[in-house]
Amino acid sequence: MQRTEISSLGEFVFIEHLTKDFKPKNKSTETSIGDDAAVLNYGEEKRVLVTTDMLLEGIHFDLVYCPLKHLGYKAAVVNFSDIYAMFGTPAQLTVSIGVSKRFSVEDIEELYAGIRLACDLYNVDLIGGDTCASMTGLTLSLTCIGEANPEEIVYRKGAQPTDLICVSGNLGASYMGLQLLEREKRVFDGDKDFVPAFEGHEYILERQLKPEARKDIVESLKKANIKPTSMMDISDGLSSELLHISQNSHVGIRIYEDRLPIDYQTASMAEQMNLNVTTVALNGGEDYELLFTVPLAMHDLVADIDDIHIIGHITAPELGAALVTRDGAEIRLRAQGWNAFNEN
Amino acid sequence: MQRTEISSLGEFVFIEHLTKDFKPKNKSTETSIGDDAAVLNYGEEKRVLVTTDMLLEGIHFDLVYCPLKHLGYKAAVVNFSDIYAMFGTPAQLTVSIGVSKRFSVEDIEELYAGIRLACDLYNVDLIGGDTCASMTGLTLSLTCIGEANPEEIVYRKGAQPTDLICVSGNLGASYMGLQLLEREKRVFDGDKDFVPAFEGHEYILERQLKPEARKDIVESLKKANIKPTSMMDISDGLSSELLHISQNSHVGIRIYEDRLPIDYQTASMAEQMNLNVTTVALNGGEDYELLFTVPLAMHDLVADIDDIHIIGHITAPELGAALVTRDGAEIRLRAQGWNAFNEN
Repeated sequence: MQRTEISSLGEFVFIEHLTKDFKPKNKSTETSIGDDAAVLNYGEEKRVLVTTDMLLEGIHFDLVYCPLKHLGYKAAVVNFSDIYAMFGTPAQLTVSIGVSKRFSVEDIEELYAGIRLACDLYNVDLIGGDTCASMTGLTLSLTCIGEANPEEIVYRKGAQPTDLICVSGNLGASYMGLQLLEREKRVFDGDKDFVPAFEGHEYILERQLKPEARKDIVESLKKANIKPTSMMDISDGLSSELLHISQNSHVGIRIYEDRLPIDYQTASMAEQMNLNVTTVALNGGEDYELLFTVPLAMHDLVADIDDIHIIGHITAPELGAALVTRDGAEIRLRAQGWNAFNEN
Repeated sequence: MQRTEISSLGEFVFIEHLTKDFKPKNKSTETSIGDDAAVLNYGEEKRVLVTTDMLLEGIHFDLVYCPLKHLGYKAAVVNFSDIYAMFGTPAQLTVSIGVSKRFSVEDIEELYAGIRLACDLYNVDLIGGDTCASMTGLTLSLTCIGEANPEEIVYRKGAQPTDLICVSGNLGASYMGLQLLEREKRVFDGDKDFVPAFEGHEYILERQLKPEARKDIVESLKKANIKPTSMMDISDGLSSELLHISQNSHVGIRIYEDRLPIDYQTASMAEQMNLNVTTVALNGGEDYELLFTVPLAMHDLVADIDDIHIIGHITAPELGAALVTRDGAEIRLRAQGWNAFNEN
């Protein structure tokens, strides 16, 4: 029998490959696989949005530097982020956990304290889940259900040439926070008297350990009567997400290096570690910022909103997806984000 | 810091303990944790039902004797079963998988072929999921979304004294199938020429490896205009589920040993293995049959439906939950079902 390594396909091709033969059969399934969340039609007034995430110890988190309460908070928030990225409102959450004997009741209480904090802040209800023993480590699987008016949902597919490309907040901070944590973990290596060098890096650490979903940006856009033409959240890195918009909307992309919003702490840590900060901003991932497009005519409206940055514009599809560097060169965008199945 | 072992609480107390401080905040959250599925209110006409299950290699399945296609089928079907147990109809499914390098693309295709077969047979749409690398083995987490008219949903809480207690199909077959698989695995133990002794045991093996959800029973009940007063599916064992009904409905339980439906293959395998077949039927689990109660007046209507068995009746709460043995003795029901966190 043939044996194809999963790493030879990459995550998105693999998912596409596995799911291509599943055809929707129910009237209530309005939009299925391929966006931040699925859209279900269970009545006239509202649409139900569904998104899910799995988090595995040793792959997505390292409990050496990720406190369980933070992990719970982050696991919940990254799901809420997917619902906001559809321009919806998260409302319910299921949490399934697999727990090995290494963990005590108090440990898992900490995890749930983080989930509860996130649920309280984002007004989401825990409605169920599954709790089971695991042979090895901690496994988390969360599913978030949200709601939206049918006419307000924003997909990845609506971007049009000349639309402005916007991102909220700044990019690469979470990735640099992770690099710092990994470095200090290596330095530590069992030394009991070791004090990690975290001072002055609080912001990038917080972006990695306790990210927020951009509820505020969705609210600001709605208040300003701006409905983006396309939207998604940045979990795998800006490049990867822009390619999704390009593919789903059948358009080209031009973003400008000098427009990428980067925090001072991100830039200085990248310099310290000899990393190109633009590469970090493009491919770091786990930003959980919103990436969206709006019609050019909305330039002034969007520019007025705090913490939104216009980084480029949509072009005709034949122009492809590219970054325009500071010196005017065009570099093709490639998804170098998290390939979880990569061999190295 | 205090350290309480999870095994000291047991699964249900543990879940209760973790979730007790989560209070519903959204109007759309109609029924939260504590039944086969949560009930969401997203409009006048329909209710949305949500259930989720996590399956971990080495805990819930053993790939030595569980083919991946069967595993996919079973993982989907056990979720559908929870939706039927609310008297609803499953409609959408998300599938998240964590996969180690041991698995090839072809392996996971097999898994999805099983999921697809289940989705086709039960008319359910795959709407999303997450695919990630895992350090060890295979991790599955599925969430099923279903629908029901508000007035037709059946909870665990509606049973009344004198109601008849019914189960579909028969009990203990899946458990005996598992015992047989485990025995043959031990006998096998690396012997290449080994031929497992499966002949004549096809039924119990199928019940373990490829269970079905009792869609047909729900349809028959609806057709006969019977709305059960309470209902759940039997995943942890009849005893454990009866105690849930007892607790949620605040009633007592009397079931009769000579009424328990047991298949010939189950009984003969139990005898071969020196197991008490009543214990197997009460505590085996993974039956995925429906357990429900109906008003006494519906006796004839229910008795007319194929493959439904009346095994006892509901009593006043102070009488507790008991099995009446063949010789008339009363034995208190105890949940000896799967305690996944048990030390032994």
